[in-house]
Amino acid sequence: MVIVMKRDATEDQISRVIDKLTKAGFDVHRSTGVERSVLGAVGGKVVDTRDYELLDGVKEVIRITQPYKLATRTFRPEGTLISLGPEVRFGGEEVVVMAGPCTVESREQIQLVAAAVKKVGVKVMRGGAYKPRTSPYSFQGLGEEGLKLLREAADRHGLFVVSEVMDQTQIPLFLDYVDIVQVGARNMQNFNLLKELSKIRKPVLLKRGMAATIEELLLSAEYIMVGGNHQVILCERGIRTFETYTRNTLDLSAIPVIKKLSHLPIVVDPSHGTGRRDKVIPMARAAVAAGADGLLIEVHHDPENALCDGAQSLYPEQFSRLMDSLRIIAPAVERSIA
Amino acid sequence: MVIVMKRDATEDQISRVIDKLTKAGFDVHRSTGVERSVLGAVGGKVVDTRDYELLDGVKEVIRITQPYKLATRTFRPEGTLISLGPEVRFGGEEVVVMAGPCTVESREQIQLVAAAVKKVGVKVMRGGAYKPRTSPYSFQGLGEEGLKLLREAADRHGLFVVSEVMDQTQIPLFLDYVDIVQVGARNMQNFNLLKELSKIRKPVLLKRGMAATIEELLLSAEYIMVGGNHQVILCERGIRTFETYTRNTLDLSAIPVIKKLSHLPIVVDPSHGTGRRDKVIPMARAAVAAGADGLLIEVHHDPENALCDGAQSLYPEQFSRLMDSLRIIAPAVERSIA
Amino acid sequence: MVIVMKRDATEDQISRVIDKLTKAGFDVHRSTGVERSVLGAVGGKVVDTRDYELLDGVKEVIRITQPYKLATRTFRPEGTLISLGPEVRFGGEEVVVMAGPCTVESREQIQLVAAAVKKVGVKVMRGGAYKPRTSPYSFQGLGEEGLKLLREAADRHGLFVVSEVMDQTQIPLFLDYVDIVQVGARNMQNFNLLKELSKIRKPVLLKRGMAATIEELLLSAEYIMVGGNHQVILCERGIRTFETYTRNTLDLSAIPVIKKLSHLPIVVDPSHGTGRRDKVIPMARAAVAAGADGLLIEVHHDPENALCDGAQSLYPEQFSRLMDSLRIIAPAVERSIA
Amino acid sequence: MVIVMKRDATEDQISRVIDKLTKAGFDVHRSTGVERSVLGAVGGKVVDTRDYELLDGVKEVIRITQPYKLATRTFRPEGTLISLGPEVRFGGEEVVVMAGPCTVESREQIQLVAAAVKKVGVKVMRGGAYKPRTSPYSFQGLGEEGLKLLREAADRHGLFVVSEVMDQTQIPLFLDYVDIVQVGARNMQNFNLLKELSKIRKPVLLKRGMAATIEELLLSAEYIMVGGNHQVILCERGIRTFETYTRNTLDLSAIPVIKKLSHLPIVVDPSHGTGRRDKVIPMARAAVAAGADGLLIEVHHDPENALCDGAQSLYPEQFSRLMDSLRIIAPAVERSIA
Repeated sequence: MVIVMKRDATEDQISRVIDKLTKAGFDVHRSTGVERSVLGAVGGKVVDTRDYELLDGVKEVIRITQPYKLATRTFRPEGTLISLGPEVRFGGEEVVVMAGPCTVESREQIQLVAAAVKKVGVKVMRGGAYKPRTSPYSFQGLGEEGLKLLREAADRHGLFVVSEVMDQTQIPLFLDYVDIVQVGARNMQNFNLLKELSKIRKPVLLKRGMAATIEELLLSAEYIMVGGNHQVILCERGIRTFETYTRNTLDLSAIPVIKKLSHLPIVVDPSHGTGRRDKVIPMARAAVAAGADGLLIEVHHDPENALCDGAQSLYPEQFSRLMDSLRIIAPAVERSIA
Repeated sequence: MVIVMKRDATEDQISRVIDKLTKAGFDVHRSTGVERSVLGAVGGKVVDTRDYELLDGVKEVIRITQPYKLATRTFRPEGTLISLGPEVRFGGEEVVVMAGPCTVESREQIQLVAAAVKKVGVKVMRGGAYKPRTSPYSFQGLGEEGLKLLREAADRHGLFVVSEVMDQTQIPLFLDYVDIVQVGARNMQNFNLLKELSKIRKPVLLKRGMAATIEELLLSAEYIMVGGNHQVILCERGIRTFETYTRNTLDLSAIPVIKKLSHLPIVVDPSHGTGRRDKVIPMARAAVAAGADGLLIEVHHDPENALCDGAQSLYPEQFSRLMDSLRIIAPAVERSIA
Repeated sequence: MVIVMKRDATEDQISRVIDKLTKAGFDVHRSTGVERSVLGAVGGKVVDTRDYELLDGVKEVIRITQPYKLATRTFRPEGTLISLGPEVRFGGEEVVVMAGPCTVESREQIQLVAAAVKKVGVKVMRGGAYKPRTSPYSFQGLGEEGLKLLREAADRHGLFVVSEVMDQTQIPLFLDYVDIVQVGARNMQNFNLLKELSKIRKPVLLKRGMAATIEELLLSAEYIMVGGNHQVILCERGIRTFETYTRNTLDLSAIPVIKKLSHLPIVVDPSHGTGRRDKVIPMARAAVAAGADGLLIEVHHDPENALCDGAQSLYPEQFSRLMDSLRIIAPAVERSIA
Repeated sequence: MVIVMKRDATEDQISRVIDKLTKAGFDVHRSTGVERSVLGAVGGKVVDTRDYELLDGVKEVIRITQPYKLATRTFRPEGTLISLGPEVRFGGEEVVVMAGPCTVESREQIQLVAAAVKKVGVKVMRGGAYKPRTSPYSFQGLGEEGLKLLREAADRHGLFVVSEVMDQTQIPLFLDYVDIVQVGARNMQNFNLLKELSKIRKPVLLKRGMAATIEELLLSAEYIMVGGNHQVILCERGIRTFETYTRNTLDLSAIPVIKKLSHLPIVVDPSHGTGRRDKVIPMARAAVAAGADGLLIEVHHDPENALCDGAQSLYPEQFSRLMDSLRIIAPAVERSIA
């Protein structure tokens, strides 16, 4: 933390700031310039910088360390690999494409989609069993039955499974059925859920909240890591801005930013990020070109009759062509696609 | 729902749209202009407008009914009164000021603050026992012990109590201690929590999420109301914008907007909305002038040593002067302050 | 500027940073902690901090001085008074209400509105002659004829005049007709316009851009002041956020923030800030309660037939009642209304 | 325009709305449902929908036509090609990469950069002579001398030139030196400038404002087209959001959105969009993968000593490698790079 004193700060005021810092466990280095004094404080614990800003004589307080530790790249400079088995590794050379329907609707539907995505090289299937819906009048998912059908279809086609958990009471149930537990954007700061996920030993796919800064996303990852679960896959899925043509604004620059700040893999969900089928394809390509470690894409065998988010689901043929184009792009960033 | 067809839409395309609408339970009224056809669809249930936008020949789809019903002003044009007893009524003539510390720290602290706020006319005390903190390394609250101390202090000084619940498993505990259950901004779309709160019979104070539109706030209120609990108090506490001088941008225009759209009371939290003591006072005044039904204000007997958010807590003397100025402002909007 | 070096920065890297700073005219104070070195640099001119951030061994660069000088409160701690004569002083005890139509439409219209606003105590009339319109197909104003009619009406009723200039070529024309030259939100960073306005000796009302931070607003004021014109009145008129119920989000917390950072007066335009008549009234009241030095309000004798922005114009009777309520509120913040 | 009446709207109220519409030149089609009436209005001119929203009995007003005409894809479904000669065509199969320094600093500098970008296939050079700077204390460009040096270097290396104009008085000067006139983000709604540019017969590169919606960008293009200049190249350069790690948030989804709404070419400026060299490369790749018609990239032979925006300028070698990777990506979207 660096504390910049006002030009007219008195010696007394400076002393009081130094005292408070020292009591909070900081080593303080004072640098007295011609115009003003600057105090460098290192070694203390996380504090609310505003507590110092309001002291007399203080002009500005600047935090110089990230508030997260385990999620920072310094902690593991070589990057983290999260494996579901020898064939699926997030953060490795291969870009992992996860695909499937927004929501599990029936045995027939999920089997059809599973077959379709498997055919074009997908190894991880997505599918919602519990759906966070803005309106209480919207379809809320099949619940446990959905998880069962998802697992059954995945097993039949040799796929891994990712699905979204709604709260911490559902964790034991999810551990029975899924390979990756997904935390939705609205739950990114459901801290009790994060704390419980820190105790499991399966990967967590953590989506960025619609209004969450990258720093807050990494702090939420930290909640999971601090309890011992270091298998966190971050996911950019669009942030809320003033632009209304797209559902959200997919922030692809988050990919290189996170690659620099953190060692955790980062994947992109262009389906929720844009909300429309015809925008999903270009943004999926762009995400791979920007260096994403994976994609999460909604595919449905019959989007027009989908119970949820059909508008953003790709037809199997579209998805297949998308995969072909991704295979062209990946080598440009020294990656590959299965 | 109104569906605007493209100029060159064929009769066949129009028929297919009408078919889909009819199957979804809508009455369809077709209006054929010189340039294009427009379809008015009424009576069906909530649908995803994008499902129609992607049909061939469709130019645009416009929703014409709010997706919420119970929260709409039409449902109760005269407005809703939420009473904690004869003296405290949200939505009535009196502006209800709720005050207290960010977090309960000790018996002594909460007793001191309770006495201070009671003295200047406050009837409802706020105080956090469980704290949602962005960083896992920050103080997380005293838990149940905090609720006990809060209740004890409130009872001693004849105050009601509002405190924030973190997830649905804590609801039974909260019912033992608090008069109003607060849902924090990060939980505004924790739908499992909202569903459980729809079953209780105590008022819920629902904070607007940092990136939530007013419509989404009302839909979250709808989740609580649809289960039978109509005692929902809405709370504006600042939204996230590009401006960084303030922690959030307090959206006071939400007050007149919500007054028009809904019958529910709306209160304002200028402490979290601005994040700094010297901004809390002008914004509290502004909120009352803009027609707020209540305020939620952080007061601490010793803010410099507060364990949480001291920077935004008022000193008791400041709070007392604020109350005096609010008593001048309230009559300008035909309201009063205790 | 404070430069935080990485933990593993070499002596060589540190020397190179110090060299670059010294060449740029800074005095450098090095503070060597246990963990890392921190360099404090004072006295140099404005630099792009990113030029230092990309040097080897640098972790972070923090600017410690505001990039504006003349606009900062330190420059004139007692605040600036901008007078149009003995009766109108921005930044004084009296809150200055400016009112009038969005645009000058005809002699009759502007005379009627002038009479109406004069009657309830207004001393400065607003009215647009040139209108910045998002669409080329919208009414663009009467031009010089509008300025003439505005001046004529103002003179007849003993009012001062504020009107919006579109570019620097119009300045001489405006000097003939107006008392305050208004710079619209879209022109806040039209630097050639600002430079020319720095040479005039009439007050400039500078509106905050829709996406401008408070710092950028103050830097634009600095452009005007640096050329010798210190008569700058700042104006908050709403920023662009994700919320769409209101045209913009009126950021009233900008008032106390600017009062702290700068000595310049700050007024509020609730008409453009909200875009709807029924929201203008509560937000005008809130602005005064938050400490605004003035208001800019659209009033029209016949809003339903206004050529521009009728939806946000008040009826004269509404405006009169608003003035009454403002007279109740102002004393709460130790101000008055004429 | 569709006007949805309230459930309890009287016949009288409905008649008055129909009257007002008819007077404004609309054909009105009334559709009377069980619950409410809906009025479809076509054929009139652009109106402010709020004027109808405030009429008694009206629930909601929805615009059904884009407010722009010439910029809409319907106007030229096959897309627009903007040629600088047989080799450079915006909107064609080849992605046009424009590169050069942020600002022209000296003859030597611009010659060096021109040679460097020419060598790797660039055909259009960028370079600023007048710089819009947030602070009055920053370097403001060489002015006309800069334009001369830019032209000279371009001619020597067989390059076309794009440079940013600051206001309409500079247009004649620019016509002497440049091939494409650039309108910066801060000037996107400088309507007097746009009107003058509508009279020239050279292409205009129009950058999206930091807070401009896509619709507003297209309306600004309309200002230029309506006067007869249809050669408008749109440019996405990042929008302002709450995220602060990047200077702006590059909205790549604007590419497919604009491709659908308009026939105009759309290019991307990843240098200003991100503000840091290490983010420029992934975002340039992503832009091409998302379907951009061109790129605008800052390259400097010695970024560490650049007078402006050195932090976001690529080294020539980096730029060369970037071009190589773009040549791999382009075929994935059926495009090529020179």
